[in-house]
Amino acid sequence: MASKPIIGFAGLGAMGGGMATNLVKEGFTVYGFDVYQPLVDKFVEAGGKPAKTPKEAASQADFFVSMVANGAQNSSLLFEGDDAVVRGLGKGKTFILCSTTPTTFPQEIRTRLDKESNRSDVKFLDCPVSGGTIRAANGTLSIFSSGPDADLDAAKDVLECMSGNLYRMGDITNGTKTKTIHQLLAATNIISASEAMGLAATVGLNTKAVMDQVNGSDAASFMFENRAPHMINDDWSALSALGIILKDTTIVTDAAREAQFPSPLANTAHFTYLQGVHAGLLKEDDAKLVQLYIPKSQGDLVAQMSKADVKMTASHKVSKDTIVDLLAGIHLAASVEGMAFCKALGQDRKIMYEIISKAAGWNAMFTKCMPAMLEKDEWTLAECAEAPEVAKKLSEAVERCRAIQYPCPMASAALQQFAFAALASKTVENTSRDSR
Amino acid sequence: MASKPIIGFAGLGAMGGGMATNLVKEGFTVYGFDVYQPLVDKFVEAGGKPAKTPKEAASQADFFVSMVANGAQNSSLLFEGDDAVVRGLGKGKTFILCSTTPTTFPQEIRTRLDKESNRSDVKFLDCPVSGGTIRAANGTLSIFSSGPDADLDAAKDVLECMSGNLYRMGDITNGTKTKTIHQLLAATNIISASEAMGLAATVGLNTKAVMDQVNGSDAASFMFENRAPHMINDDWSALSALGIILKDTTIVTDAAREAQFPSPLANTAHFTYLQGVHAGLLKEDDAKLVQLYIPKSQGDLVAQMSKADVKMTASHKVSKDTIVDLLAGIHLAASVEGMAFCKALGQDRKIMYEIISKAAGWNAMFTKCMPAMLEKDEWTLAECAEAPEVAKKLSEAVERCRAIQYPCPMASAALQQFAFAALASKTVENTSRDSR
Repeated sequence: MASKPIIGFAGLGAMGGGMATNLVKEGFTVYGFDVYQPLVDKFVEAGGKPAKTPKEAASQADFFVSMVANGAQNSSLLFEGDDAVVRGLGKGKTFILCSTTPTTFPQEIRTRLDKESNRSDVKFLDCPVSGGTIRAANGTLSIFSSGPDADLDAAKDVLECMSGNLYRMGDITNGTKTKTIHQLLAATNIISASEAMGLAATVGLNTKAVMDQVNGSDAASFMFENRAPHMINDDWSALSALGIILKDTTIVTDAAREAQFPSPLANTAHFTYLQGVHAGLLKEDDAKLVQLYIPKSQGDLVAQMSKADVKMTASHKVSKDTIVDLLAGIHLAASVEGMAFCKALGQDRKIMYEIISKAAGWNAMFTKCMPAMLEKDEWTLAECAEAPEVAKKLSEAVERCRAIQYPCPMASAALQQFAFAALASKTVENTSRDSR
Repeated sequence: MASKPIIGFAGLGAMGGGMATNLVKEGFTVYGFDVYQPLVDKFVEAGGKPAKTPKEAASQADFFVSMVANGAQNSSLLFEGDDAVVRGLGKGKTFILCSTTPTTFPQEIRTRLDKESNRSDVKFLDCPVSGGTIRAANGTLSIFSSGPDADLDAAKDVLECMSGNLYRMGDITNGTKTKTIHQLLAATNIISASEAMGLAATVGLNTKAVMDQVNGSDAASFMFENRAPHMINDDWSALSALGIILKDTTIVTDAAREAQFPSPLANTAHFTYLQGVHAGLLKEDDAKLVQLYIPKSQGDLVAQMSKADVKMTASHKVSKDTIVDLLAGIHLAASVEGMAFCKALGQDRKIMYEIISKAAGWNAMFTKCMPAMLEKDEWTLAECAEAPEVAKKLSEAVERCRAIQYPCPMASAALQQFAFAALASKTVENTSRDSR
């Protein structure tokens, strides 16, 4: 163990705490820092070493890993004040950015290190992660690593210890761009789970049975599988705060607008998250967004319905299949949007396909429909063989929502894209018109 | 006439050319500058004086009016190089920003004048305009003026000469914020005209008859009345380029995200404009966006249908009333979104109501439904008495679009907001559920 490098670590929250503790378990000496002292105490109980400042955490480190919440916190951590990492990190050591930040941020860090801090000696790796708290804690995250090859080679042991799927994406910013593309799918899938489960509860379906059916169907997704149990069990302790996915979604839609890339599903997810903020859910688990879809007095309706046995009335036709069709339709439109976004950001779609297939952005329609499109490398729904059939089912699902005035912004936005796709496929005159 | 102040003017395009020429007609001496020489020549033919550089246009000016396209062009005009306005403008003279720029921009200009150029003596007024090329040319624009009272008083003659409705909004940035709020409605109304007319043409309605009915109904709007004739006549010469409204919409959605304000209709308009860019329409008239909704081979379908007499078949139920219902529904949702945005940006809603009623963002639902809400000062669709009836008709219109796979992203986004509003109104258990 003596030969293992020493790690500095900042950001000991839900994700970072698991990652740092896992490094300790794997025999690394890890100096942990967090602005919130109880998180440091918890880390020390798990065998970590405490650091009072970022500088202290950095001072003996061969590798400094940052999992703080955002770009601003990283800027502060690295550069601001006498206790900044840049004041402690030894010559030629490595800073590994694992946080999700804007696509312009990694280059900003490199430039500030070089020009402002005169620290060109510091190696900088842009390595965002995906996979959630469980995979963080057991060292099986997906990591999108980028930076100079030699520096990535030197950091291999540390990165592999945290990762189940370690990807090399090229120069810095490519790691963060990859994460951004991935988060388009994460963002659309998370809110869709609320839209679907809210519908199930609203019409009185047994939500547990709906969840089980979805998980075994074309409507499955990592996010649904992960978040739906929070709703079913009325248990929000495995907190993934709305604020986190809102931040990531903002990064996605910022990058999309920067690239002049139309992203209707990501945009719809974004404003729905903002509606969640307005409903007071910013610091709540993002699965609580289901409350947006349910009369206010009945926030726990999904949990209630998991035990209910409800008689369907003639006033609506929403069945478990409807929920499946709704989700599958959203997921297919989002998958195509995500891969088109990948193209717009200049990333390799075959690697992206592999990444998303194994990460938290996964959904069943993605792995079902994208491989055929990869062969053609065309990224519109009009090019997707399965689209007409999926659209037909989605259209019926949206109609059933409409009939009961159920808000389904994601399904609705997806359906519009299928309609545009159908239009793009038309080459002859509309047959429903009959000039005389 | 000798007592009239001398004007420098930059940006002699569709709007600025009309404004500058109108000032000449009203007896002002105007030195005009544009980077595109033919526009200067045209201005000189109309009685203006030519300027070879911004500095030259500024050197004798008491007031310098800028109507260049965006923030970047204003920064360049004012500050960059030896020929910049700031190098020519005399001590204590006034720079009037009439361009539409981001909400952070006016303060940035003031700060750069003070700190970077050491020109605290220059008076700076933030005065964006609205109304289109015709009102620009005849001096009847709406102008949202802001800045120090004394400086606004001093500029009164110049501003009034350009304006039919001159508003005072307070300190700088309030003018630009007002314009931004107004542009939310302009943006949603412009794209809705294409969505509506595309539908009319797709189902074979006589588009001229549809246009006439809309203009006399609750579905009327300034933008529809202005843009639909371009489509009907297949005449795009009164160019208002997609690039312009795209820029303004980006400012709207930027300000919305900055304020964490959910703006589903503005967002939907935004991505639809981006889809127009992808379809190659960036420099085309924004009314050409109707082509997004019509099979590609049939870009002039709206114009054809203005002469057609088409037998309706049983395959769809879209009538002229459907088009009216679709537009009225979008316009009401957008009106409420706009006024809620006004609240989020801290502007006075009663003044805003008056402004929008007389400017290019006007629509009939706005003047029909907002006054009652102003009394209560609540800005959700749930608070709007007319919403349930409008929603019912919109829902039927959307259903008819769905039945023929017609893409209606705006109507669809609006309908979701009505559904959320209906939900917010529910306080008792869903009556369609029947537990046993």
